[in-house]
Amino acid sequence: MAIVLGPNRYGKAETRVVRVVRDGGTHTITDLNVSVALSGDLSATHLTGDNANVLPTDTQKNTVYAFAKRHGVASPEAFALLLARHFTSSQPTIGTARVEIEEYPWNRLGPHSFSRDGSAVRTAAVVVSSGSTEITGGLAGLTLLNSTDSEFTGFIVDDYTTLAETSDRILATAVDATWRFAAAEADFNAVHVAARDALVAAFVGTYSHSLQQTLYAMGTAVLEACPDLVEVRLRLPNKHHFVVDCTPFGLDAAAEVFHADDRPYGLIEGTVLRDPA
Amino acid sequence: MAIVLGPNRYGKAETRVVRVVRDGGTHTITDLNVSVALSGDLSATHLTGDNANVLPTDTQKNTVYAFAKRHGVASPEAFALLLARHFTSSQPTIGTARVEIEEYPWNRLGPHSFSRDGSAVRTAAVVVSSGSTEITGGLAGLTLLNSTDSEFTGFIVDDYTTLAETSDRILATAVDATWRFAAAEADFNAVHVAARDALVAAFVGTYSHSLQQTLYAMGTAVLEACPDLVEVRLRLPNKHHFVVDCTPFGLDAAAEVFHADDRPYGLIEGTVLRDPA
Amino acid sequence: MAIVLGPNRYGKAETRVVRVVRDGGTHTITDLNVSVALSGDLSATHLTGDNANVLPTDTQKNTVYAFAKRHGVASPEAFALLLARHFTSSQPTIGTARVEIEEYPWNRLGPHSFSRDGSAVRTAAVVVSSGSTEITGGLAGLTLLNSTDSEFTGFIVDDYTTLAETSDRILATAVDATWRFAAAEADFNAVHVAARDALVAAFVGTYSHSLQQTLYAMGTAVLEACPDLVEVRLRLPNKHHFVVDCTPFGLDAAAEVFHADDRPYGLIEGTVLRDPA
Amino acid sequence: MAIVLGPNRYGKAETRVVRVVRDGGTHTITDLNVSVALSGDLSATHLTGDNANVLPTDTQKNTVYAFAKRHGVASPEAFALLLARHFTSSQPTIGTARVEIEEYPWNRLGPHSFSRDGSAVRTAAVVVSSGSTEITGGLAGLTLLNSTDSEFTGFIVDDYTTLAETSDRILATAVDATWRFAAAEADFNAVHVAARDALVAAFVGTYSHSLQQTLYAMGTAVLEACPDLVEVRLRLPNKHHFVVDCTPFGLDAAAEVFHADDRPYGLIEGTVLRDPA
Repeated sequence: MAIVLGPNRYGKAETRVVRVVRDGGTHTITDLNVSVALSGDLSATHLTGDNANVLPTDTQKNTVYAFAKRHGVASPEAFALLLARHFTSSQPTIGTARVEIEEYPWNRLGPHSFSRDGSAVRTAAVVVSSGSTEITGGLAGLTLLNSTDSEFTGFIVDDYTTLAETSDRILATAVDATWRFAAAEADFNAVHVAARDALVAAFVGTYSHSLQQTLYAMGTAVLEACPDLVEVRLRLPNKHHFVVDCTPFGLDAAAEVFHADDRPYGLIEGTVLRDPA
Repeated sequence: MAIVLGPNRYGKAETRVVRVVRDGGTHTITDLNVSVALSGDLSATHLTGDNANVLPTDTQKNTVYAFAKRHGVASPEAFALLLARHFTSSQPTIGTARVEIEEYPWNRLGPHSFSRDGSAVRTAAVVVSSGSTEITGGLAGLTLLNSTDSEFTGFIVDDYTTLAETSDRILATAVDATWRFAAAEADFNAVHVAARDALVAAFVGTYSHSLQQTLYAMGTAVLEACPDLVEVRLRLPNKHHFVVDCTPFGLDAAAEVFHADDRPYGLIEGTVLRDPA
Repeated sequence: MAIVLGPNRYGKAETRVVRVVRDGGTHTITDLNVSVALSGDLSATHLTGDNANVLPTDTQKNTVYAFAKRHGVASPEAFALLLARHFTSSQPTIGTARVEIEEYPWNRLGPHSFSRDGSAVRTAAVVVSSGSTEITGGLAGLTLLNSTDSEFTGFIVDDYTTLAETSDRILATAVDATWRFAAAEADFNAVHVAARDALVAAFVGTYSHSLQQTLYAMGTAVLEACPDLVEVRLRLPNKHHFVVDCTPFGLDAAAEVFHADDRPYGLIEGTVLRDPA
Repeated sequence: MAIVLGPNRYGKAETRVVRVVRDGGTHTITDLNVSVALSGDLSATHLTGDNANVLPTDTQKNTVYAFAKRHGVASPEAFALLLARHFTSSQPTIGTARVEIEEYPWNRLGPHSFSRDGSAVRTAAVVVSSGSTEITGGLAGLTLLNSTDSEFTGFIVDDYTTLAETSDRILATAVDATWRFAAAEADFNAVHVAARDALVAAFVGTYSHSLQQTLYAMGTAVLEACPDLVEVRLRLPNKHHFVVDCTPFGLDAAAEVFHADDRPYGLIEGTVLRDPA
């Protein structure tokens, strides 16, 4: 059988751009990490090294900077959309552009002073190809913990089971969520706030029999809060907190001290969506 | 529209298991990071918290340990296959099992002494579902550098271009490769050695007009060397080394000093496959 | 010359302990990373492997858990002090104990629900030896940015200078601060809040001619706000934000778009202390 | 009490410089991470923002590049010494220069092709001040494992002890070593090879009753092998490998499967030196 080139893409990853807007003495900053991936008619550069169809990744980086300057950053979703449309519309050889953005949030301390808010990173991804635009928002690293209202019982028992059932445990996770928009027009910033609030409220408000149940409640809450969204994907590591048995040290058995373990960890992944049926 | 559960999976990620085999005074060690993800009839735990169909991730971890003890680790591919078949065959509620393994290589220093070889991590992923088995091997973090025989010219020039053409540059990358096997039977360890050697030889031997050209040469070399493989996926970050202009310091312009930059970086991704046509 | 054993210490590093306190339905959590290092009469274990004077690091870990259970965690400084005094007073062979703690802050979301506050980590270090106790508090990773009110001019120019003077730049840093207490008794939590507030206020309020000037202002502000403290150490990386020149793209020269660089970075370290003279 | 400036220093950290030497078609590369820290008469910049005594960190970076071009890199120790002497001799306001270097090793694949050797990083640190020069070499991240010939018994038992004695365990560590030279003249590269070989041989050859015993054996071996050295500092994390009990799964109790744990970990630190007495 002959050997052929399959799917491929290329681009500039992780352009770290900070946009400052000055409104008199009051400044606003937007702190982004932008990654571009382009695909299209790129066989020649792979097969012969002919780069006539290649828009250099250096130029992609420059475009990110120039667009931040010219257009500002209304939201990561809107900025990604601007860029993706630019690459596909300006370059005949580029059929599809994928732009992914991480936005690092900052809290205001003064008219031109800020502190980095380390609680979570906002994310966006836009894919534009001929006749198709897909927009997702999301967040990563939102770490949540309930110190009770979580149990885990009634599971399968097989030859390798040693886990005991528990009626009260710590449930903790670092939420990685992405949500897909029904259309390319939306109030992306308002949706972000509403979706984040819904995630948090559902985590806090769910009496959990499994992290899967919490996941489904969180995804449902986002869709109920945000009519613009059609699908939510969640990736929830189970950040295990194991009770430390202090009875060997003459102490009681109440679960008050926990070991926050690193690895291994449970990992629950799931999608919640509007049923088109 | 109603809200429904979409695709989902769960499992124990990153079980760090080391298997020791003792042949008299000579020991062999295998150092693995094993991640399991199961999917199947899991609606109940999401919708109501009923865990009757859930094999706990703790049990999955125990299974990894027990299988390492009982069967040993012939190769990461074979070990992943054993585990994936076990989960799907023993649990009626589990339709698909995905097992991913990282193997950390060690060099022998003595009969029972070893040093960690940090040059690359070997990887494997197996997906077993009813009537289907997919096996991939690979490696991650193999960092290669050519200090010449790389140029980049003839690319698209647009309004955002500032990059100059170059006829001699450093080309460096950290190879992340996966290769897919045609069947579930193969000499996985021999293929790994052959594929790795082919990747390295192709990187070294290719006069490169673009990293895409090098990628295609590397993928082709693997398929040519390994008849058991049908597809190779490569993810090659372009680890930029920028020439430092030392002429302001009264020195000549020869390109001898480079700044190894962190971000942004080019990222070239592509697939090379046997053409079934 | 003979070869001899010099200074040495050992201990259990990074015990990740979470303490839950339940006040009816309202819970409080304290999330710590505790590292212990002991030194004393430890020649035998080094020279002959005789462990009669060695308190195992596993026991140190257990002690951390048991003390968290028995005493709770009033503050990281107080908890470190309890532990350090325990090791030196209970073990005749241990002359000095150093206990370092990182505390990860969480925000309250509900009676028993919390979100991780990623803005900075609180730190403490206590060293107890015969007749001496040293207590330090601090924080790490507090990332601050002023988008103006920073300049850098009037510096040395030599044969290797290419940097231009600037009258307006972004000044950003990730504060790593430690402060030393005059005595072993203090309201450690109140000092932490006051010191952190002083650091932030000084960063925000200082028109900066150099990051050194800002450092000194920050250290001074902490000592002025906290009479219990005698010394402040600051480690301030200069997180460079370089203006991107967008004039090649037909845009104006106003500094509105910046590249947030990774490496290299300036690193300013300094101590501010009360003059005992 | 008045508030005053205490010890301070500043510099450019982590300049990532790669030096290429071309000998016809055969190239050699040296890959360094260079950090400079200067101290001296720097009160003015702290107290008033007057930078007349400040050599900018940007200039320090340029100097690193220019010296790599002009002088090449005979060894990290020699290169650090060149730089440190330059800063203190050329700048009257700089009394002390500390230069730290990490060197990333590469293996040769061809005349101008290389693969990164991830086994350990070579380190060097030079401090030059008036009338004093201190030179240290070292390495970091050399991960070693013995699968037997390690026990741990006879330790202190107290109220918090749960650890059982063991007569056969895995001993693993990631060696972080620094060694101090007696004088500023030495064959730094030859010492590096000899010291590394001695560390490895001592780890492999020592039947260990404690990691402290292994540490002392390793330090002693380095000093015996390298007459140019007067002191060795070792930092050895105990990378715990815990036996997994597989008897609940119907398997025998032989210790063949281990969990490689992340945290907490023992940490053994010690110095071995020639006795000047």
